Amino acid sequence: ASGSHLIRATLFPGDGIGPEIAESVKQVFKAADVPIEWEEHYVGQEVDPRTQSFLTWESLESVRRNKVGLKGPMATPIGKGHRSLNLTLRKELNLYANVRPCYSLPGYKTRYDDVNLITIRENTEGEYSGLEHQVVRGVVESLKIITRQASLRVAEYAFHYAKTHGRDRVSAIHKANIMQKTDGLFLKCCREVAEKYPEIKYEEVVIDNCCMMLVKNPALFDVLVMPNLYGDIISDLCAGLIGGLGLTPSCNIGEGGIALAEAVHGSAPDIAGKNLANPTALMLSAVTMLRHLELHDKADRIQNAILNTIAEGKYRTADLGGSSSTTDFTKAIIDHL
Amino acid sequence: ASGSHLIRATLFPGDGIGPEIAESVKQVFKAADVPIEWEEHYVGQEVDPRTQSFLTWESLESVRRNKVGLKGPMATPIGKGHRSLNLTLRKELNLYANVRPCYSLPGYKTRYDDVNLITIRENTEGEYSGLEHQVVRGVVESLKIITRQASLRVAEYAFHYAKTHGRDRVSAIHKANIMQKTDGLFLKCCREVAEKYPEIKYEEVVIDNCCMMLVKNPALFDVLVMPNLYGDIISDLCAGLIGGLGLTPSCNIGEGGIALAEAVHGSAPDIAGKNLANPTALMLSAVTMLRHLELHDKADRIQNAILNTIAEGKYRTADLGGSSSTTDFTKAIIDHL
Ligand SMILES: CC(C)[C@H](C(=O)O)[C@@H](O)C(=O)O
Ligand SMILES: CC(C)[C@H](C(=O)O)[C@@H](O)C(=O)O
Repeated sequence: ASGSHLIRATLFPGDGIGPEIAESVKQVFKAADVPIEWEEHYVGQEVDPRTQSFLTWESLESVRRNKVGLKGPMATPIGKGHRSLNLTLRKELNLYANVRPCYSLPGYKTRYDDVNLITIRENTEGEYSGLEHQVVRGVVESLKIITRQASLRVAEYAFHYAKTHGRDRVSAIHKANIMQKTDGLFLKCCREVAEKYPEIKYEEVVIDNCCMMLVKNPALFDVLVMPNLYGDIISDLCAGLIGGLGLTPSCNIGEGGIALAEAVHGSAPDIAGKNLANPTALMLSAVTMLRHLELHDKADRIQNAILNTIAEGKYRTADLGGSSSTTDFTKAIIDHL
Repeated sequence: ASGSHLIRATLFPGDGIGPEIAESVKQVFKAADVPIEWEEHYVGQEVDPRTQSFLTWESLESVRRNKVGLKGPMATPIGKGHRSLNLTLRKELNLYANVRPCYSLPGYKTRYDDVNLITIRENTEGEYSGLEHQVVRGVVESLKIITRQASLRVAEYAFHYAKTHGRDRVSAIHKANIMQKTDGLFLKCCREVAEKYPEIKYEEVVIDNCCMMLVKNPALFDVLVMPNLYGDIISDLCAGLIGGLGLTPSCNIGEGGIALAEAVHGSAPDIAGKNLANPTALMLSAVTMLRHLELHDKADRIQNAILNTIAEGKYRTADLGGSSSTTDFTKAIIDHL
């Protein structure tokens, strides 16, 4: 690929094991001739003593300009008054949908081998409003906010995703039998959007029942769309079904077509710098970024190489029960390209 | 047992399959010489046309007076303005803790054989406040209310339960990293109570992580205590791990020492009256009522008979993959006493 055809993408390697696993992604992308040029910025827990900052204007502008990015794990800076960086990025970049494809990895045994679903989480409002106060001593309240605008936006994204990814069903997850107004509005918006997609089946599932069905028979589900907290809970539950956050890709969709892919696991400071980290979640997240760019051939090639390496089982990092280093595992993926 | 030693307990057989499975419980209790005299009342979806009522003062007074009761499934009455009967009972009887023992049933195969935990759910406030309103068109809000009083009360119940049931750990489930004030207060109360029980280990687990751990390795948990909605979600998730609501007992604890045990599954109108229903959940719920009365010998005897019947596998109802009738399954349990 010549320089003129390169797509610029932002890279935030992040903290802890972040730089190592980001390095793996870069190597695999290079070996697969992915036409991406990385624009790297540090965002993380370190604070420049002069600016007291860890999140620069340039980092944010880079994502806004490039519209695609990849982010490693970030720890929240130590000291008072620092908000979670993940939450700050969601807010600043208006990342309204968190998308997590969740599928059983062939050859990596868990109690489930039949998971193949997508969770789509509203990522800007709901229980995450931050609006809380003490009413009187010993009585506190939190506000859950649901808006028509954000609900329509995430519902639209979910149906569009289903349609463009060969999925045939969208389930809206809710507790409208109790929160009739908030979750009720969320469902109303989903129904409105569903009408525009007659080819996609639409159903509504109460969250408690959904969790029971997921652990009994996850194959019942296809695309799930839901308010913020339910998405937080269910996406982690689903990650658990296939082995945990070390294997689950994630991508955040923002206004204006931004896609910021991210590994949702922690920065694992205990093993940082030891060449032990598992780059799978970040690499599969990078694959979702490629799909967003409609580079499906590259995406398939890399995804297959990752899955085949794990399925073969010869090279696996310690968290997957193996003893490979990050670099050996990465080389094995490159060999499978 | 002579009449003078009989304990009076309220029985609400409920709707649909309720009367059949309640009949099973009565027969098993009789065969096991349980010193209980049932005081039966109808509470359910049928409405007396003269009173427009389905929930009489006498029914509520019966539970308040007897302090112990058993309730079958109840459907919400058809027609406008009727609230869920389950929610009404919780409110009227101040049923502040919902307790669900959840354990793998030997011989009944699911993906898990290592579940042995208790979920204790705050049952009166939180996300179930019913306080919701439209702020402006397209913007709605719900209030989550957490009080010191209700949090201390359920935490106290959880630790007391752990202590008196040979359990050695209590995990408080929360999302205080986001809802710092509400879930923060809940945790603060749990910590205060934990200090009074130095022999019980105490930990705090974020709900998303808790769900992931539960599906990966439920054996990590012992007693879980949590606000209302998290309890709703997690108790159903846990029921799913062992086979569903048809197998899970539940008991509600109210102010003044009330214990109202209940089957949490539906009334299954499609199979009602056909001698096909599975009485297991109601019968195991009745066992929790016996434990509340400290009739542990009777409780053990009946619980073992149920578990052995299921484990043997010769008599199982259709929902468990067998072809027994309700009455044959019940007879088998009696034979196992
Ligand atoms: C760390 C926490 C604030 C965050 C969330 O609740 O959204 C995390 O659980 C996630 O899912 O990204
Ligand atoms: C039916 C519904 C209102 C109820 C609840 O949410 O509490 C149910 O799910 C339960 O757990 O008893």
